[in-house]
Amino acid sequence: MARAWHLMSRPEGLPTSDNFALKDIDLTAVGDGQLRVRNLWLSVDPYMRGRMNDVKSYVPPFQLGQPMDGGAVGEVVESQADGFAPGDLVQHMAGWRDEAVIDARTANKLPNLGAPPEQFLGVLGVTGMTAYFGLLDAASAKPGDVVFVSAAAGAVGSVVVQIAKAKGMTVVGSAGGADKCDYVRALGADHVIDYKAGSVLKGLAGAAPDGIDVYFDNVGGDHLDAAFALARQNARFAICGMIDSYNDATPASFRFIMRIIAMRIRLQGFIVFDYFPRMTEFYGEMGPWLASGAVKSRETVVDGLDNTLDAFLGLFTGANTGKMLIRL
Amino acid sequence: MARAWHLMSRPEGLPTSDNFALKDIDLTAVGDGQLRVRNLWLSVDPYMRGRMNDVKSYVPPFQLGQPMDGGAVGEVVESQADGFAPGDLVQHMAGWRDEAVIDARTANKLPNLGAPPEQFLGVLGVTGMTAYFGLLDAASAKPGDVVFVSAAAGAVGSVVVQIAKAKGMTVVGSAGGADKCDYVRALGADHVIDYKAGSVLKGLAGAAPDGIDVYFDNVGGDHLDAAFALARQNARFAICGMIDSYNDATPASFRFIMRIIAMRIRLQGFIVFDYFPRMTEFYGEMGPWLASGAVKSRETVVDGLDNTLDAFLGLFTGANTGKMLIRL
Repeated sequence: MARAWHLMSRPEGLPTSDNFALKDIDLTAVGDGQLRVRNLWLSVDPYMRGRMNDVKSYVPPFQLGQPMDGGAVGEVVESQADGFAPGDLVQHMAGWRDEAVIDARTANKLPNLGAPPEQFLGVLGVTGMTAYFGLLDAASAKPGDVVFVSAAAGAVGSVVVQIAKAKGMTVVGSAGGADKCDYVRALGADHVIDYKAGSVLKGLAGAAPDGIDVYFDNVGGDHLDAAFALARQNARFAICGMIDSYNDATPASFRFIMRIIAMRIRLQGFIVFDYFPRMTEFYGEMGPWLASGAVKSRETVVDGLDNTLDAFLGLFTGANTGKMLIRL
Repeated sequence: MARAWHLMSRPEGLPTSDNFALKDIDLTAVGDGQLRVRNLWLSVDPYMRGRMNDVKSYVPPFQLGQPMDGGAVGEVVESQADGFAPGDLVQHMAGWRDEAVIDARTANKLPNLGAPPEQFLGVLGVTGMTAYFGLLDAASAKPGDVVFVSAAAGAVGSVVVQIAKAKGMTVVGSAGGADKCDYVRALGADHVIDYKAGSVLKGLAGAAPDGIDVYFDNVGGDHLDAAFALARQNARFAICGMIDSYNDATPASFRFIMRIIAMRIRLQGFIVFDYFPRMTEFYGEMGPWLASGAVKSRETVVDGLDNTLDAFLGLFTGANTGKMLIRL
């Protein structure tokens, strides 16, 4: 019997365990063009919080009383689709559960890059692509730029730091607490700000007294405002996430937003899905970086389907360093 | 004896007459390469408020106890510079005064476009260039786009509306009060929002139920937030001004800023000075538009140097329709 996490009610603010239930599900028989997959790894990501609201966005909302979904890596155990055989490892979107019957066209066989499979949910997956295209395309970051990254110990941020260093940029990373700051420093960041130890604005002004060229925004709020305050002329901001606001209906407020004009700042929101057609370009750089050690993968691993919800909730309290994954 | 408006103290919030004084000034003798100019028209512009603060920006702050400056059109009355003769009309930056001795290299002889000289402080000057390059370059507006313009009855906004219509766009303009809204409608706007009569957000949602592609921001605040709320995918915002915040230290707050991500919104701050090298391109389109009547110039004219300060202060209470000018 398969089991899946269901959304039972829509959270107000920070979700609680009352909003969810882990329940048995019936699997349909494997039809033509379909696969049965036993999941090995599940991904939980901050963007999933948005799907718990009943609003139209770039991904549809989760339906009440239904299983949730998300990134997963699994092993094919039964195939009625050409090109897939039992034993194949696939990346797909039927996460939040231990087993699924899926259309083969929604599954990607993992390419052979010599990397462990769970990395296709992280540094070689959507997480890594978000970092790569956000930094290099949305923010047009160039060698020599001073780059500020928030949530620099997080899944995306930690990859941004490493790509920026691999490309010859100066990096200021922000993270919460001494352990995470040590980790960001170990990733190669030139300066690290502990946002739990004091004002982000003061920290950034100290770390980058001549200002920043690029800001990779994962959090919004005070971090974004500090970036406005320290932006140099023609600075570019990639707006990837605003986790500060995901559970909070309070309007975000900014003291320094007016500097957009004087400093000719560009803000560019982006969604990684738009870059999927350029996946080959991404593998072409990320594969060698992983092989050479220029980029290292880091995961926070939680064991067991039962603990998936806690792993998700932990994203909002900073429980993860690097990518948060569930091992089944 | 020449007279000039001096900044005597730095305003907190909205400036008052106590911050300024109209005083006699001594003019130096006209040296080599210099001109003496009798001003005919003075420009007052919202950006000047920023120069009254002692902060580094794209133009240096006004100095306490010294004459202020700004755009002006005058007649050469004495020349020690090649290429300039008494009677020539020039555009220059020694405004806020009736007469000045200036370096000829800071003066531009008015080109012969068949337009009245004061238009070189408006639709054919910095104001028109701001509208033109902000809309077409910073916001990359294209025929067919739905364009939202705030302060659409103002100097820049009224030109944006007309250029957008000349280029085949659908235009929603926002202005304060029935008279200004009538003016914006007369300029050709497809929909007009009276922001004094109700919520900007509701007005925009009614005028553009399918959303907007471009926002030309002159005001910030609620208008910018409404644009976030209604932005379609790949919307582009040109951030030209935030007059809502110029006199106000309260942080700007936004409920819908997070839509930057889902809608892949681009915000681009810009300063018209950066486009001065492309002035010929601008004259090439604006000249014919004025000649054909596709773009009409509109000014609010105040008479007399003594009334210059009131004209400036009127910018912040909506006293102008179109460009605010002082005739000497």
